[in-house]
Amino acid sequence: MSFANTPPPPYYAVIFTSQRTEKDSKGYKRTAELMVELASKQTGFLGVESSRDHDGLGITVSYWDSLESIKQWKEHMAHQKAKEKGKKDWYSAYITRICKVDRDYHSI
Amino acid sequence: MSFANTPPPPYYAVIFTSQRTEKDSKGYKRTAELMVELASKQTGFLGVESSRDHDGLGITVSYWDSLESIKQWKEHMAHQKAKEKGKKDWYSAYITRICKVDRDYHSI
Repeated sequence: MSFANTPPPPYYAVIFTSQRTEKDSKGYKRTAELMVELASKQTGFLGVESSRDHDGLGITVSYWDSLESIKQWKEHMAHQKAKEKGKKDWYSAYITRICKVDRDYHSI
Repeated sequence: MSFANTPPPPYYAVIFTSQRTEKDSKGYKRTAELMVELASKQTGFLGVESSRDHDGLGITVSYWDSLESIKQWKEHMAHQKAKEKGKKDWYSAYITRICKVDRDYHSI
């Protein structure tokens, strides 16, 4: 994964910080890829950036045009199912933060 | 590094997404640690979360009580020096985004 090619602000960001358990690597990877694919087809999706270190701490930031688009993705059935599985098996802890991006600076 | 123990929203976030070069691992690591230590002593600092994957793509999110605190940290002399070095040697590309966090959900 790489940089999200977001438009000039304002736009919205969902910061998802999570600690992976060691359970079910294959199922997790498959679902994570599917969620990126599905999210990118949603109305208002602007991009996603993701990183997970060798200790299993990850930060994924998805970017959206509006709070309404974020809400619709939150309520998407496949996404809800993935989140349930995440809570149960894949993550020992996580925090989701909903933000409005007011400014950005690019070097690329 | 782990989760930032942020207070109830609203608060502010600086999302820094970067691609590391392969240059100067030691110098980079030392400065990155020093910047976290220095930032955490600044007025208005609420916490930081950071992850870098095996391909060198990293996301660091620092949390602050106000835009004024973010501005002061931006102008901090040691931070400015580190950023210059970052642009020159450590990062092939980066994006900084300044956000207001309006909502969050914790599982921890």
